[in-house]
This record gives sequence, structure tokens and C-alpha cells, in this order.
Amino acid sequence: MVKTYTYAAQDPKAKLAPFVIERRDPGADDVQIDILYCGVCHSDLHTARNEWANTLYPSVPGHEIVGRVTAVGANVKNFKVGDLAGVGCMVDSCQQCASCNEGEEQYCENGFTGTYNGPVFGGENTYGGYSTQIVVKQQFVLHIGHPEKHLAAVAPLLCAGITTYSPLAHWKTGPGKKVGIVGLGGLGHMGVKIAAAMGAHVVLFTTSESKRADGLRLGAKEVVVSKNPEEMAQHASSFDFILNTVAAPHNLDPFLNLLKRDGTMTLVGAPEHPHPSPTVFNLIFKRRSIAGSLIGGIRETQEMLDFCAKHNIVSDIEQIDINYINDAYERMLKSDVKYRFVIDIASLKKEAEAA
Amino acid sequence: MVKTYTYAAQDPKAKLAPFVIERRDPGADDVQIDILYCGVCHSDLHTARNEWANTLYPSVPGHEIVGRVTAVGANVKNFKVGDLAGVGCMVDSCQQCASCNEGEEQYCENGFTGTYNGPVFGGENTYGGYSTQIVVKQQFVLHIGHPEKHLAAVAPLLCAGITTYSPLAHWKTGPGKKVGIVGLGGLGHMGVKIAAAMGAHVVLFTTSESKRADGLRLGAKEVVVSKNPEEMAQHASSFDFILNTVAAPHNLDPFLNLLKRDGTMTLVGAPEHPHPSPTVFNLIFKRRSIAGSLIGGIRETQEMLDFCAKHNIVSDIEQIDINYINDAYERMLKSDVKYRFVIDIASLKKEAEAA
Repeated sequence: MVKTYTYAAQDPKAKLAPFVIERRDPGADDVQIDILYCGVCHSDLHTARNEWANTLYPSVPGHEIVGRVTAVGANVKNFKVGDLAGVGCMVDSCQQCASCNEGEEQYCENGFTGTYNGPVFGGENTYGGYSTQIVVKQQFVLHIGHPEKHLAAVAPLLCAGITTYSPLAHWKTGPGKKVGIVGLGGLGHMGVKIAAAMGAHVVLFTTSESKRADGLRLGAKEVVVSKNPEEMAQHASSFDFILNTVAAPHNLDPFLNLLKRDGTMTLVGAPEHPHPSPTVFNLIFKRRSIAGSLIGGIRETQEMLDFCAKHNIVSDIEQIDINYINDAYERMLKSDVKYRFVIDIASLKKEAEAA
Repeated sequence: MVKTYTYAAQDPKAKLAPFVIERRDPGADDVQIDILYCGVCHSDLHTARNEWANTLYPSVPGHEIVGRVTAVGANVKNFKVGDLAGVGCMVDSCQQCASCNEGEEQYCENGFTGTYNGPVFGGENTYGGYSTQIVVKQQFVLHIGHPEKHLAAVAPLLCAGITTYSPLAHWKTGPGKKVGIVGLGGLGHMGVKIAAAMGAHVVLFTTSESKRADGLRLGAKEVVVSKNPEEMAQHASSFDFILNTVAAPHNLDPFLNLLKRDGTMTLVGAPEHPHPSPTVFNLIFKRRSIAGSLIGGIRETQEMLDFCAKHNIVSDIEQIDINYINDAYERMLKSDVKYRFVIDIASLKKEAEAA
């Protein structure tokens, strides 16, 4: 067992604070990774504060992990010491069900093991990337093809990137398609970049006039302020696909009305309280669909990382030291970040050395 | 112009009563049909009573029409005098938009003309099948391949049949697929018959234990009483597709939970008041979809009629005389019909002769 320095929440009301855990020594199928950067996802905050009522404490969040391989088990062929590596939201799944067999481990019919708070689906607790090192089964470790100098900004691809890439790919975003992205936050800004790189005509929907310039800079061809009914009306029944990244409860109908016949709006944010019930007429009269999508499988996550490396796509980040994490959470609650906090884990290692 | 005997509503509170209209003489592209039977759809009642707040009076309902061709225009090649013919929910569309060009006139981007209450989409009022004859543009007339003795029971195929056939075909119902039908009424009983004939493993969901035997007789392999959580739980995450025919507001989540990964539940009933808002988590965790579907295109309606003729599928009906229509409406409101009223238009012709 290896003593590992982390930041953890001890209960729903506690701030995150230093905490020492033990990680297993790498087994035959394991990859041990020295963590360099870890992105800060809204799920981290939900879990630390038990907002989904399923948190096992102590809780060490973080599932946008990049680092360098420090040891590999005897059966590991695809990674060697010194490689850059990434870990996303999952560290295990049953590997036997139809979903796992099709490379869709995120829909594992027996429940995947989350990188943190794993016991949601059974098993021992798992501790995430707000830590100096992690040991992960080789099937759940990703290769990083980006230049090393961009590594911090690669971290958010492991959750925000795949959460937007997967539905955009599944619903066949590409040249000739008109694709909407609702919301310009951690997920939305990745959605804009990825959909644009896929060749679609991307329209960003935001409630905030102030985000118009940023939307265009990130790759949107048009930015629509969704509170303005006239702007919205100009796009009626014209979208092939809309990716809705907004988790706050909101009226879905104005967006559903923008879908063409057979168009789909996919939700990747789960609201704490339900959205107003969507109007069935809007679905019936154009054979429209509302769908949901959850992160992506491991094979697809690698595909996304390779796609992003090829297209020079990284996240727009604000790099922070670990001791800023509680302030970062407060700012994240106010959407006061462009567009993702990423922890420099060197700051955690310094604390560890000083301790 | 041809004087034509009908039953019409003169205002939202009036009972349907005899009323004489004038129909156009058949033009070069028209088919004139002597109506033999007309099915009674719930939309007839909604429209007669202005429940969708868009009725133009006088209103002559009826869009499940079968009869015999009595005259054809000079350009009509596909029909001749004496042929059996059917007319469904549409009598015109723009014939120019993408949807019309793809044979999906029900999604006409300029709005199709309904067989009755046509001005919803502009143009002159149209009068439906509670009448002795109708004149319809040849593109909107269907061939009937069923034996003539079953003609009354064919009528409901023109709306209830195509409304269920179209989504079942679109979402690729067939052998190896597990398909749910929610609700055993006019639509649901057609859904069960058609999905079974397509080769699917059909499960009927009903709130009423008393419909179990009928569900099996109609072709369901299993019948689940949806009020029973234990019965429902046995089918968790197992359906490829669910066709939900229930227009009354109800909780969609227990049905969404029965869909496999990537499964779709399609709604064909539009509730007067919204359904409770479906839980987004249920969509996200299996990439499930909720969709809507509206009747079907003309090409597909002919395909459905041919399919039903080949598989000996007709509606289960209760044949009525026209003067029973107001009573039939009251019974329809109580779901007291197995499973569709069909008006014998001979009774209307007798009234016309007596008048």
C-alpha cells in the first residue's frame, strides 16, 4: 500500500482539506500514475456536499486526471513508465454485459465503478484525482497525444470533453449539419469547440449577451441569446441536433421548437428539480426526440482524445493551486470561471512535502 | 357543386345533427367517393367540441373513410369508377417542401390540409367523413386491398392504423425486438396487432386487469398491469421500443425505466394537460429517448393498408348508425368501446332520402 496525499471532504458541510489515504500497489493489470493535473467538475462539488444523497465519506473528488505513468503491472502492454496518461470518470465495470462488450462501459448493466465515490454501484470506496497518485486497471487508462505543454488544459477533456463528444458523435454531427449547443460553461464550451471541429454549423445558445463574443471565438458560427424570442424564432425548425448542457431547470420547449423534423435534443445535465414538462405536441408534430447521454465509453474517450489532439482542442482553463479548491467551488456555483478550473497537483505535492 | 348530407356540430356545445353542405364537382385530379363507412376517432370529438381551440364551424368530423369511387378526373390514372378507396387524415399538402418530397406529408412544412377542419393550416374549411360522399385530390386517396366484407373494420386503419404503424416501422419493429404498447384503446389495439404481425415480442401495458385476456387475444405475448410495480420491475431495461398511446396525463418514468440502452418511447397521444415532467436521470443513464409521432405519410399509409390486408388485420369495431353518434361520443369518453366505433354511412343515406 502506498500512502497518498489528497484533499477530501469528511462530511457534507466540511470544506475540502488535506487527508492521507492508502492506494494499492499496482497489480498485474494496473497502471500507476503520478498525477500532474486534475480538472474540477461540477459533479465533484455535488458529491463532496452529498447533493445526490449517495456520498460515502471521506470523499476525494476528481475525475479529469492527467499524469505520468510511474509503474505498470506484468500484463500491461499498452503503457510504459514515463508515458503521459489520463483517467476519466470510470475505473472499472463488469466487462461482461452487452454494454461493456460494445465498449459502452458507461452504460454497464451491472454499474460501472466511478473514479471516486465508486460504491454507488457497489464495492469499496474509490478516491479521485485530488491526490498525488492513482492506480487504475489498464483498460480504464487513456493515452494522451497532446503536446505536454498543454497538459493542464487536456485534463477537462476526460469528463467535459467526452460528455459532449459522445452525443455529438452518436447523433452524427458533421458537415452539413446545423447543431446547437445550449449553455456556455465547462461542458458547453467543449461542445462548441468539438462540434465546430466535426464540421457542423454551430449555433451557441446563451442567456447572457456578454458571452456572444466568446461563443464566436470558440467556434460558433452564430450566437443566439435564448431569452430573446425574436432571435429564437429565426431558427425555428432548422436544427438537426441540439446538445443541451444546462443542468438548471429550464423550459425545454423553446429549444425543441428549433429542431427540424426527426431532430433530437440531448440533455447531458441532470437538474436537481425537474424541468417544466415539455409539450408533447412539439414532439409529435415533427417526430422530434428528447434524449439523454452519459459521458462516453473508454474506446470513444480515446477516440475523443485523439480527435482533440489532431484538431488542437483543449479546454479553456483557469489553473489553481489545491488550497484554492474551496474558493473555486464557490465561484463555480456562480458560473464565475472561464471555463474550467484545473488543479496543479504540484501544489498538493508541495503541501505533502511540507507536512 | 353537389349537395351532400352530413352530420355536423354548429358550435362547441351543440350535439352533432343533420346538415347539408356542398362539395365541389370532381376536377381533373380528383376522385369522388361514395362513402360507405367512417370510423370515429377521439380527434373528431376534440374538434366538434373545440377542445383544441381551433375549430371552424360548422364542423363535419370523420377521417377514417372508406367507400367506392363514383367518378374520376381526366388526370386520374390509379383509380377507376367502382374501386374501393380510402381517405385518412389529410386531403392536401404543399407538395413542395422537404417533408412532402420525402413522402412525409404529415410533417409538411407549410402545413397539411386536414380532411376536416382544414383551415387550421389555412385555406377553406374542409368537411370530413360523417357525410355521404367526398371529393379528394388523387394523391391523397388510398387503395383498399382487404375483402369487401371487412370494409367497415378497415376504416379505422386510416387513422388508428397508420398512427401506430408509422412509429412501429420508423423505429424498426420486427423479429428479435421487444416492443411495448401502452394502453388498449382504439390506437393501442391496432398497435398490438400490427407490432405482432411485424414479428416483435409484444407486451401490452394496461391499467386494467380486465383487459389481460383481450391483450393476449389481439397478439400480445405478455400483458402487464402497469399499476403493479412488481410486474413492471420484471421488465426493467428490457424494451427496444415502447409505443405509448395514452393521451391522459400520466407518469412516463415507470415506462422509460423499462427501455434498454438506446431505447425509445414514442408518444402518439397529446395530453390536454402536461404529463408529469419525466426524470432526466432515466434518459441520461441509458441514453434513452422520448419521441413523438404523427399519423404517417400517404405512401406509408398505402404500405400499412397493404401490410394489413396481407396479414388479415382490421380493427375491432362496434358498428353504429349515424344517429347514435352523440351517444357514441359519451361512451368514447368513458373508454366504453371495443375498440372503435364505425358509422355505417348507409344510415346517413337513409336519413337523407327521408329528408
